[in-house]
Amino acid sequence: MGEYIEKINSALLDLQNGKFILVYDNESREGETDIIMASEFVAPASIRTMRMDGGGLIFLMISNEIANKLKLPYLADLFSDINNRYPVLKELIPNDIPYDTKSSFSLYINHRNTFTGITDIDRSLTMKKFAELTKKIDGIDDGLATKMFGKEFRSPGHVPICIASEKLLDSRKGHTELVISMLKMAKLTPAGSGCEIMGDDGKALSKDKAKKYADDNGLIFLEGNKIVEAWKKWLK
Amino acid sequence: MGEYIEKINSALLDLQNGKFILVYDNESREGETDIIMASEFVAPASIRTMRMDGGGLIFLMISNEIANKLKLPYLADLFSDINNRYPVLKELIPNDIPYDTKSSFSLYINHRNTFTGITDIDRSLTMKKFAELTKKIDGIDDGLATKMFGKEFRSPGHVPICIASEKLLDSRKGHTELVISMLKMAKLTPAGSGCEIMGDDGKALSKDKAKKYADDNGLIFLEGNKIVEAWKKWLK
Repeated sequence: MGEYIEKINSALLDLQNGKFILVYDNESREGETDIIMASEFVAPASIRTMRMDGGGLIFLMISNEIANKLKLPYLADLFSDINNRYPVLKELIPNDIPYDTKSSFSLYINHRNTFTGITDIDRSLTMKKFAELTKKIDGIDDGLATKMFGKEFRSPGHVPICIASEKLLDSRKGHTELVISMLKMAKLTPAGSGCEIMGDDGKALSKDKAKKYADDNGLIFLEGNKIVEAWKKWLK
Repeated sequence: MGEYIEKINSALLDLQNGKFILVYDNESREGETDIIMASEFVAPASIRTMRMDGGGLIFLMISNEIANKLKLPYLADLFSDINNRYPVLKELIPNDIPYDTKSSFSLYINHRNTFTGITDIDRSLTMKKFAELTKKIDGIDDGLATKMFGKEFRSPGHVPICIASEKLLDSRKGHTELVISMLKMAKLTPAGSGCEIMGDDGKALSKDKAKKYADDNGLIFLEGNKIVEAWKKWLK
Protein backbone atom coordinates (compact mmCIF):
# COMPACT_ATOMS: atom_id res chain seq x y z
CA MET A 1 0.00 0.00 0.00
CA GLY A 2 2.91 2.38 0.66
CA GLU A 3 3.67 2.72 -3.01
CA TYR A 4 0.00 3.23 -3.70
CA ILE A 5 -0.31 6.04 -1.17
CA GLU A 6 2.43 7.83 -3.08
CA LYS A 7 0.47 7.33 -6.26
CA ILE A 8 -2.72 8.64 -4.66
CA ASN A 9 -0.80 11.68 -3.40
CA SER A 10 0.56 12.36 -6.87
CA ALA A 11 -2.97 12.11 -8.25
CA LEU A 12 -4.22 14.58 -5.62
CA LEU A 13 -1.47 16.96 -6.68
CA ASP A 14 -2.43 16.52 -10.34
CA LEU A 15 -6.04 17.33 -9.49
CA GLN A 16 -4.90 20.46 -7.65
CA ASN A 17 -2.92 21.45 -10.73
CA GLY A 18 -5.93 21.06 -13.01
CA LYS A 19 -4.65 17.89 -14.67
CA PHE A 20 -6.66 14.86 -15.69
CA ILE A 21 -6.40 11.58 -13.77
CA LEU A 22 -7.82 8.21 -14.80
CA VAL A 23 -10.14 6.33 -12.45
CA TYR A 24 -11.11 2.70 -12.96
CA ASP A 25 -13.98 1.54 -10.73
CA ASN A 26 -13.59 -2.24 -10.46
CA GLU A 27 -14.21 -5.56 -12.18
CA SER A 28 -17.45 -6.23 -10.33
CA ARG A 29 -19.02 -2.86 -11.23
CA GLU A 30 -18.90 -1.13 -14.60
CA GLY A 31 -15.28 -2.10 -15.29
CA GLU A 32 -14.85 1.30 -16.92
CA THR A 33 -12.10 3.89 -16.78
CA ASP A 34 -13.17 7.52 -16.65
CA ILE A 35 -10.96 10.47 -17.52
CA ILE A 36 -11.65 13.07 -14.85
CA MET A 37 -10.55 16.44 -13.46
CA ALA A 38 -11.68 19.05 -10.94
CA SER A 39 -14.48 21.11 -12.53
CA GLU A 40 -13.00 24.38 -11.27
CA PHE A 41 -10.17 24.01 -13.82
CA VAL A 42 -12.23 22.89 -16.82
CA ALA A 43 -11.53 24.77 -20.06
CA PRO A 44 -12.85 24.20 -23.60
CA ALA A 45 -9.72 22.14 -24.38
CA SER A 46 -10.60 19.82 -21.46
CA ILE A 47 -14.01 19.11 -22.97
CA ARG A 48 -12.33 18.44 -26.30
CA THR A 49 -9.95 15.92 -24.71
CA MET A 50 -12.83 14.21 -22.92
CA ARG A 51 -14.86 13.80 -26.09
CA MET A 52 -11.91 12.86 -28.34
CA ASP A 53 -10.05 10.53 -25.95
CA GLY A 54 -13.03 9.52 -23.79
CA GLY A 55 -16.04 9.42 -26.05
CA GLY A 56 -18.65 8.50 -23.43
CA LEU A 57 -20.97 10.87 -21.61
CA ILE A 58 -19.30 14.08 -20.41
CA PHE A 59 -20.76 14.59 -16.96
CA LEU A 60 -20.54 16.60 -13.78
CA MET A 61 -20.15 14.83 -10.43
CA ILE A 62 -21.09 16.62 -7.22
CA SER A 63 -21.12 15.86 -3.52
CA ASN A 64 -24.32 14.97 -1.74
CA GLU A 65 -23.93 18.12 0.40
CA ILE A 66 -24.01 20.41 -2.64
CA ALA A 67 -27.03 18.57 -4.05
CA ASN A 68 -28.80 19.06 -0.71
CA LYS A 69 -27.92 22.71 -0.57
CA LEU A 70 -29.26 23.30 -4.10
CA LYS A 71 -32.22 20.95 -3.56
CA LEU A 72 -31.11 18.97 -6.59
CA PRO A 73 -33.09 15.71 -6.79
CA TYR A 74 -32.16 12.32 -8.14
CA LEU A 75 -34.03 12.05 -11.43
CA ALA A 76 -35.26 8.55 -10.49
CA ASP A 77 -36.93 9.99 -7.33
CA LEU A 78 -38.45 12.88 -9.24
CA PHE A 79 -39.83 10.47 -11.87
CA SER A 80 -41.22 8.24 -9.15
CA ASP A 81 -43.01 11.22 -7.56
CA ILE A 82 -44.77 12.20 -10.77
CA ASN A 83 -45.50 8.82 -12.31
CA ASN A 84 -49.21 9.02 -11.61
CA ARG A 85 -49.43 11.96 -13.93
CA TYR A 86 -46.97 10.47 -16.43
CA PRO A 87 -47.72 6.72 -16.35
CA VAL A 88 -44.97 5.99 -18.89
CA LEU A 89 -42.52 6.59 -16.02
CA LYS A 90 -44.02 3.64 -14.14
CA GLU A 91 -43.23 1.41 -17.09
CA LEU A 92 -39.69 2.75 -17.45
CA ILE A 93 -38.70 2.23 -13.79
CA PRO A 94 -34.95 1.52 -13.69
CA ASN A 95 -35.21 -1.48 -11.38
CA ASP A 96 -32.76 -3.63 -13.31
CA ILE A 97 -29.47 -1.73 -13.50
CA PRO A 98 -26.94 -4.56 -13.82
CA TYR A 99 -24.08 -3.03 -11.81
CA ASP A 100 -25.83 -0.99 -9.13
CA THR A 101 -29.09 -0.45 -7.27
CA LYS A 102 -29.76 3.15 -8.15
CA SER A 103 -29.03 5.63 -10.91
CA SER A 104 -27.08 8.65 -9.67
CA PHE A 105 -28.40 10.95 -12.41
CA SER A 106 -29.85 14.29 -11.38
CA LEU A 107 -30.85 17.10 -13.76
CA TYR A 108 -29.14 18.14 -17.01
CA ILE A 109 -28.16 21.81 -16.93
CA ASN A 110 -26.83 24.61 -19.14
CA HIS A 111 -25.33 27.86 -17.94
CA ARG A 112 -27.66 30.65 -19.08
CA ASN A 113 -24.82 32.33 -20.98
CA THR A 114 -24.36 29.32 -23.23
CA PHE A 115 -25.71 29.34 -26.76
CA THR A 116 -26.63 25.80 -27.87
CA GLY A 117 -25.12 24.37 -24.70
CA ILE A 118 -23.19 21.60 -26.45
CA THR A 119 -20.00 23.19 -27.81
CA ASP A 120 -16.72 22.77 -25.94
CA ILE A 121 -16.93 26.43 -24.92
CA ASP A 122 -20.50 26.00 -23.67
CA ARG A 123 -20.04 22.77 -21.73
CA SER A 124 -16.85 24.14 -20.23
CA LEU A 125 -18.64 27.31 -19.12
CA THR A 126 -21.46 25.29 -17.54
CA MET A 127 -19.02 23.14 -15.57
CA LYS A 128 -16.63 25.86 -14.49
CA LYS A 129 -19.43 28.18 -13.41
CA PHE A 130 -21.05 25.36 -11.47
CA ALA A 131 -17.82 24.85 -9.54
CA GLU A 132 -17.66 28.59 -8.86
CA LEU A 133 -21.25 28.54 -7.62
CA THR A 134 -20.51 25.73 -5.17
CA LYS A 135 -17.85 27.96 -3.62
CA LYS A 136 -20.20 30.94 -3.41
CA ILE A 137 -23.04 29.05 -1.70
CA ASP A 138 -20.90 27.76 1.12
CA GLY A 139 -22.53 28.94 4.34
CA ILE A 140 -25.48 30.54 2.54
CA ASP A 141 -29.01 29.33 3.36
CA ASP A 142 -30.62 26.78 1.02
CA GLY A 143 -33.38 29.00 -0.32
CA LEU A 144 -30.95 31.69 -1.42
CA ALA A 145 -28.53 29.09 -2.80
CA THR A 146 -31.28 27.67 -5.02
CA LYS A 147 -32.10 31.17 -6.28
CA MET A 148 -28.44 31.84 -7.07
CA PHE A 149 -28.35 28.52 -8.92
CA GLY A 150 -31.42 29.39 -11.02
CA LYS A 151 -30.15 32.84 -11.80
CA GLU A 152 -27.17 31.31 -13.58
CA PHE A 153 -28.42 27.94 -14.88
CA ARG A 154 -31.37 26.41 -16.69
CA SER A 155 -32.67 22.86 -17.07
CA PRO A 156 -33.18 20.86 -19.31
CA GLY A 157 -29.65 21.30 -20.58
CA HIS A 158 -26.66 19.41 -21.96
CA VAL A 159 -24.54 18.70 -18.88
CA PRO A 160 -25.78 15.81 -16.74
CA ILE A 161 -25.19 16.02 -13.02
CA CYS A 162 -24.50 12.88 -11.01
CA ILE A 163 -24.91 13.08 -7.25
CA ALA A 164 -22.58 11.13 -4.95
CA SER A 165 -24.44 8.93 -2.49
CA GLU A 166 -24.99 10.27 1.01
CA LYS A 167 -22.61 7.89 2.73
CA LEU A 168 -20.14 8.31 -0.12
CA LEU A 169 -17.84 5.28 -0.47
CA ASP A 170 -19.56 3.48 2.41
CA SER A 171 -22.65 2.85 0.33
CA ARG A 172 -21.62 3.09 -3.34
CA LYS A 173 -18.29 2.75 -5.10
CA GLY A 174 -19.11 4.30 -8.45
CA HIS A 175 -16.99 6.85 -10.31
CA THR A 176 -18.99 9.69 -8.79
CA GLU A 177 -18.18 8.61 -5.22
CA LEU A 178 -14.55 7.80 -6.06
CA VAL A 179 -14.01 11.20 -7.68
CA ILE A 180 -15.76 13.21 -4.96
CA SER A 181 -13.62 11.39 -2.35
CA MET A 182 -10.47 12.29 -4.28
CA LEU A 183 -11.55 15.94 -4.55
CA LYS A 184 -12.25 16.06 -0.81
CA MET A 185 -8.86 14.58 -0.03
CA ALA A 186 -7.32 17.17 -2.38
CA LYS A 187 -9.28 19.90 -0.52
CA LEU A 188 -10.79 21.04 -3.83
CA THR A 189 -14.37 22.07 -4.58
CA PRO A 190 -16.31 18.79 -4.65
CA ALA A 191 -17.39 19.10 -8.27
CA GLY A 192 -15.68 16.87 -10.81
CA SER A 193 -15.90 16.57 -14.58
CA GLY A 194 -15.44 13.28 -16.34
CA CYS A 195 -16.11 11.01 -19.26
CA GLU A 196 -15.97 7.23 -19.78
CA ILE A 197 -13.19 6.05 -22.11
CA MET A 198 -14.43 3.98 -25.03
CA GLY A 199 -12.49 1.42 -27.03
CA ASP A 200 -12.42 0.79 -30.77
CA ASP A 201 -14.39 -2.44 -30.43
CA GLY A 202 -17.73 -1.00 -29.33
CA LYS A 203 -16.98 -1.63 -25.66
CA ALA A 204 -15.37 0.43 -22.90
CA LEU A 205 -11.58 0.66 -23.27
CA SER A 206 -9.99 -2.32 -21.53
CA LYS A 207 -8.15 -1.75 -18.28
CA ASP A 208 -4.79 -2.59 -19.87
CA LYS A 209 -5.32 -0.18 -22.71
CA ALA A 210 -6.49 2.51 -20.30
CA LYS A 211 -3.24 2.04 -18.34
CA LYS A 212 -1.28 2.39 -21.58
CA TYR A 213 -3.20 5.56 -22.43
CA ALA A 214 -2.27 6.89 -18.98
CA ASP A 215 1.41 6.07 -19.52
CA ASP A 216 1.46 7.55 -23.02
CA ASN A 217 -0.08 10.78 -21.76
CA GLY A 218 1.71 11.17 -18.45
CA LEU A 219 -1.48 10.66 -16.45
CA ILE A 220 -2.01 8.71 -13.25
CA PHE A 221 -4.23 5.62 -13.39
CA LEU A 222 -6.01 4.74 -10.14
CA GLU A 223 -8.04 1.70 -9.18
CA GLY A 224 -11.27 2.18 -7.24
CA ASN A 225 -10.44 -0.19 -4.38
CA LYS A 226 -7.18 1.67 -3.71
CA ILE A 227 -9.05 4.98 -3.55
CA VAL A 228 -11.42 3.35 -1.06
CA GLU A 229 -8.46 2.27 1.10
CA ALA A 230 -6.87 5.70 0.97
CA TRP A 231 -10.19 7.32 1.82
CA LYS A 232 -10.66 5.12 4.90
CA LYS A 233 -7.15 5.99 6.04
CA TRP A 234 -7.75 9.70 5.42
CA LEU A 235 -10.98 9.68 7.43
CA LYS A 236 -9.19 8.43 10.55
CA MET B 1 -34.30 24.52 -56.92
CA GLY B 2 -34.20 21.74 -59.56
CA GLU B 3 -30.63 20.88 -58.70
CA TYR B 4 -31.49 20.93 -55.04
CA ILE B 5 -34.40 18.51 -55.46
CA GLU B 6 -31.91 16.07 -56.98
CA LYS B 7 -29.68 16.55 -53.97
CA ILE B 8 -32.59 15.98 -51.57
CA ASN B 9 -33.51 12.83 -53.47
CA SER B 10 -29.95 11.53 -53.23
CA ALA B 11 -30.02 12.22 -49.50
CA LEU B 12 -33.31 10.31 -49.13
CA LEU B 13 -31.69 7.39 -50.96
CA ASP B 14 -28.66 7.58 -48.65
CA LEU B 15 -30.94 7.50 -45.61
CA GLN B 16 -32.72 4.45 -47.04
CA ASN B 17 -29.35 2.80 -47.48
CA GLY B 18 -28.36 3.44 -43.88
CA LYS B 19 -25.83 6.15 -44.71
CA PHE B 20 -25.14 9.35 -42.83
CA ILE B 21 -26.22 12.72 -44.20
CA LEU B 22 -25.26 16.16 -42.86
CA VAL B 23 -27.97 18.64 -41.93
CA TYR B 24 -27.24 22.32 -41.24
CA ASP B 25 -30.17 24.18 -39.66
CA ASN B 26 -29.64 27.86 -40.56
CA GLU B 27 -27.74 31.01 -39.68
CA SER B 28 -30.56 32.42 -37.54
CA ARG B 29 -30.90 29.30 -35.38
CA GLU B 30 -28.09 27.19 -33.94
CA GLY B 31 -25.92 27.45 -37.06
CA GLU B 32 -24.84 23.88 -36.40
CA THR B 33 -24.36 20.89 -38.67
CA ASP B 34 -25.52 17.52 -37.34
CA ILE B 35 -24.38 14.16 -38.68
CA ILE B 36 -27.52 12.05 -38.83
CA MET B 37 -28.92 8.72 -40.01
CA ALA B 38 -32.08 6.62 -39.72
CA SER B 39 -32.07 4.90 -36.31
CA GLU B 40 -33.21 1.60 -37.78
CA PHE B 41 -29.76 1.20 -39.36
CA VAL B 42 -27.62 2.31 -36.40
CA ALA B 43 -24.73 -0.02 -35.52
CA PRO B 44 -21.92 0.35 -32.95
CA ALA B 45 -19.66 1.76 -35.71
CA SER B 46 -22.25 4.50 -36.35
CA ILE B 47 -22.07 5.62 -32.72
CA ARG B 48 -18.28 5.62 -32.98
CA THR B 49 -18.40 7.86 -36.06
CA MET B 50 -20.83 10.22 -34.36
CA ARG B 51 -18.65 10.60 -31.28
CA MET B 52 -15.33 10.78 -33.15
CA ASP B 53 -16.39 13.00 -36.07
CA GLY B 54 -19.32 14.74 -34.36
CA GLY B 55 -18.41 15.11 -30.71
CA GLY B 56 -21.63 16.73 -29.51
CA LEU B 57 -24.57 15.02 -27.87
CA ILE B 58 -25.57 11.73 -29.51
CA PHE B 59 -29.34 11.86 -29.52
CA LEU B 60 -32.50 10.23 -30.80
CA MET B 61 -35.07 12.26 -32.70
CA ILE B 62 -38.66 11.02 -32.94
CA SER B 63 -41.91 12.19 -34.51
CA ASN B 64 -44.60 13.81 -32.42
CA GLU B 65 -46.94 10.89 -33.29
CA ILE B 66 -44.58 8.33 -31.72
CA ALA B 67 -44.14 10.48 -28.62
CA ASN B 68 -47.94 10.67 -28.31
CA LYS B 69 -48.34 6.96 -28.75
CA LEU B 70 -45.76 6.23 -26.05
CA LYS B 71 -46.99 9.10 -23.84
CA LEU B 72 -43.48 10.51 -23.84
CA PRO B 73 -43.50 14.01 -22.33
CA TYR B 74 -41.34 17.03 -23.00
CA LEU B 75 -39.02 17.24 -20.00
CA ALA B 76 -39.76 20.97 -19.65
CA ASP B 77 -43.49 20.21 -19.26
CA LEU B 78 -42.83 17.42 -16.78
CA PHE B 79 -40.57 19.73 -14.74
CA SER B 80 -43.19 22.44 -14.82
CA ASP B 81 -45.84 20.01 -13.50
CA ILE B 82 -43.76 18.99 -10.50
CA ASN B 83 -42.06 22.25 -9.61
CA ASN B 84 -44.15 22.78 -6.48
CA ARG B 85 -42.64 19.67 -5.02
CA TYR B 86 -39.17 20.44 -6.41
CA PRO B 87 -38.88 24.24 -6.18
CA VAL B 88 -35.40 24.21 -7.74
CA LEU B 89 -37.16 23.52 -11.06
CA LYS B 90 -38.94 26.87 -10.78
CA GLU B 91 -35.58 28.58 -10.56
CA LEU B 92 -34.13 26.64 -13.48
CA ILE B 93 -36.99 27.37 -15.91
CA PRO B 94 -35.52 27.44 -19.44
CA ASN B 95 -37.20 30.68 -20.47
CA ASP B 96 -34.13 32.15 -22.17
CA ILE B 97 -33.03 29.71 -24.87
CA PRO B 98 -31.30 32.01 -27.35
CA TYR B 99 -32.28 30.23 -30.59
CA ASP B 100 -35.75 28.86 -29.84
CA THR B 101 -38.78 29.10 -27.58
CA LYS B 102 -38.84 25.59 -26.21
CA SER B 103 -36.47 22.73 -25.46
CA SER B 104 -37.37 19.58 -27.42
CA PHE B 105 -35.80 17.24 -24.85
CA SER B 106 -37.85 14.34 -23.56
CA LEU B 107 -36.55 11.48 -21.39
CA TYR B 108 -33.12 9.82 -21.51
CA ILE B 109 -33.44 6.07 -22.01
CA ASN B 110 -31.39 2.85 -22.01
CA HIS B 111 -32.48 -0.46 -23.49
CA ARG B 112 -32.81 -2.92 -20.60
CA ASN B 113 -30.29 -5.26 -22.24
CA THR B 114 -27.54 -2.64 -22.09
CA PHE B 115 -24.87 -2.82 -19.42
CA THR B 116 -23.59 0.66 -18.54
CA GLY B 117 -25.66 2.16 -21.36
CA ILE B 118 -22.86 4.36 -22.71
CA THR B 119 -20.66 2.10 -24.88
CA ASP B 120 -21.04 2.15 -28.66
CA ILE B 121 -22.68 -1.27 -28.48
CA ASP B 122 -25.10 -0.12 -25.78
CA ARG B 123 -26.12 3.20 -27.34
CA SER B 124 -26.50 1.48 -30.70
CA LEU B 125 -28.74 -1.19 -29.16
CA THR B 126 -30.91 1.43 -27.47
CA MET B 127 -31.39 3.36 -30.72
CA LYS B 128 -31.94 0.40 -33.03
CA LYS B 129 -34.37 -1.27 -30.65
CA PHE B 130 -36.27 1.99 -30.28
CA ALA B 131 -36.69 2.15 -34.06
CA GLU B 132 -37.90 -1.47 -34.06
CA LEU B 133 -40.38 -0.66 -31.31
CA THR B 134 -41.84 2.23 -33.28
CA LYS B 135 -42.63 -0.22 -36.08
CA LYS B 136 -44.22 -2.72 -33.69
CA ILE B 137 -46.53 -0.20 -32.01
CA ASP B 138 -48.04 1.04 -35.27
CA GLY B 139 -51.80 0.50 -34.95
CA ILE B 140 -51.56 -0.74 -31.36
CA ASP B 141 -53.46 1.12 -28.62
CA ASP B 142 -51.54 3.62 -26.49
CA GLY B 143 -51.75 1.74 -23.18
CA LEU B 144 -50.28 -1.40 -24.66
CA ALA B 145 -47.65 0.58 -26.58
CA THR B 146 -46.45 2.19 -23.35
CA LYS B 147 -46.22 -1.24 -21.70
CA MET B 148 -44.21 -2.61 -24.62
CA PHE B 149 -41.94 0.41 -24.31
CA GLY B 150 -41.35 -0.14 -20.60
CA LYS B 151 -40.74 -3.83 -21.05
CA GLU B 152 -37.72 -3.03 -23.20
CA PHE B 153 -36.45 0.33 -21.92
CA ARG B 154 -35.67 2.14 -18.68
CA SER B 155 -35.21 5.79 -17.73
CA PRO B 156 -33.06 7.59 -16.61
CA GLY B 157 -30.61 6.41 -19.25
CA HIS B 158 -27.89 7.59 -21.62
CA VAL B 159 -29.75 8.27 -24.87
CA PRO B 160 -31.68 11.55 -24.92
CA ILE B 161 -34.87 11.67 -26.94
CA CYS B 162 -35.88 14.86 -28.74
CA ILE B 163 -39.50 15.15 -29.87
CA ALA B 164 -40.35 16.92 -33.12
CA SER B 165 -42.92 19.65 -32.67
CA GLU B 166 -46.54 18.84 -33.43
CA LYS B 167 -46.77 20.93 -36.58
CA LEU B 168 -43.30 19.80 -37.61
CA LEU B 169 -41.60 22.33 -39.90
CA ASP B 170 -44.57 24.71 -39.71
CA SER B 171 -43.75 25.61 -36.13
CA ARG B 172 -40.07 24.79 -35.56
CA LYS B 173 -37.15 24.36 -37.90
CA GLY B 174 -34.67 22.61 -35.63
CA HIS B 175 -32.62 19.55 -36.51
CA THR B 176 -35.24 17.27 -34.99
CA GLU B 177 -37.99 18.59 -37.29
CA LEU B 178 -35.69 18.68 -40.33
CA VAL B 179 -34.59 15.08 -39.80
CA ILE B 180 -38.08 13.72 -39.09
CA SER B 181 -39.32 15.41 -42.29
CA MET B 182 -36.51 13.78 -44.27
CA LEU B 183 -37.31 10.36 -42.77
CA LYS B 184 -40.98 10.78 -43.63
CA MET B 185 -40.14 11.75 -47.20
CA ALA B 186 -37.87 8.67 -47.36
CA LYS B 187 -40.77 6.55 -46.01
CA LEU B 188 -38.54 5.32 -43.18
CA THR B 189 -39.41 4.83 -39.51
CA PRO B 190 -39.53 8.37 -38.08
CA ALA B 191 -36.71 7.85 -35.59
CA GLY B 192 -33.37 9.46 -36.38
CA SER B 193 -29.97 9.36 -34.68
CA GLY B 194 -27.64 12.30 -34.77
CA CYS B 195 -24.86 14.32 -33.22
CA GLU B 196 -23.70 17.93 -33.57
CA ILE B 197 -20.32 18.35 -35.28
CA MET B 198 -17.79 20.26 -33.21
CA GLY B 199 -14.79 22.23 -34.44
CA ASP B 200 -11.26 22.40 -33.07
CA ASP B 201 -11.78 25.94 -31.77
CA GLY B 202 -14.30 25.22 -29.03
CA LYS B 203 -17.24 26.13 -31.26
CA ALA B 204 -19.47 24.14 -33.60
CA LEU B 205 -17.72 23.23 -36.87
CA SER B 206 -18.19 26.08 -39.36
CA LYS B 207 -20.54 25.55 -42.29
CA ASP B 208 -17.66 25.63 -44.79
CA LYS B 209 -15.69 23.04 -42.87
CA ALA B 210 -18.79 20.87 -42.50
CA LYS B 211 -19.23 21.01 -46.29
CA LYS B 212 -15.61 19.98 -46.72
CA TYR B 213 -16.11 17.08 -44.28
CA ALA B 214 -19.11 16.02 -46.37
CA ASP B 215 -17.07 16.14 -49.59
CA ASP B 216 -14.13 14.28 -48.05
CA ASN B 217 -16.41 11.52 -46.79
CA GLY B 218 -18.80 11.22 -49.72
CA LEU B 219 -21.74 12.49 -47.69
CA ILE B 220 -24.52 14.84 -48.73
CA PHE B 221 -24.73 18.22 -47.00
CA LEU B 222 -28.21 19.76 -46.80
CA GLU B 223 -29.34 23.19 -45.68
CA GLY B 224 -32.41 23.47 -43.49
CA ASN B 225 -34.28 25.97 -45.66
CA LYS B 226 -33.96 23.69 -48.68
CA ILE B 227 -35.38 20.79 -46.69
CA VAL B 228 -38.28 23.06 -45.71
CA GLU B 229 -38.92 23.85 -49.40
CA ALA B 230 -38.77 20.19 -50.40
CA TRP B 231 -41.10 19.28 -47.55
CA LYS B 232 -43.70 21.86 -48.62
CA LYS B 233 -43.53 20.54 -52.16
CA TRP B 234 -43.83 16.94 -50.94
CA LEU B 235 -46.90 17.74 -48.84
CA LYS B 236 -48.82 19.01 -51.84
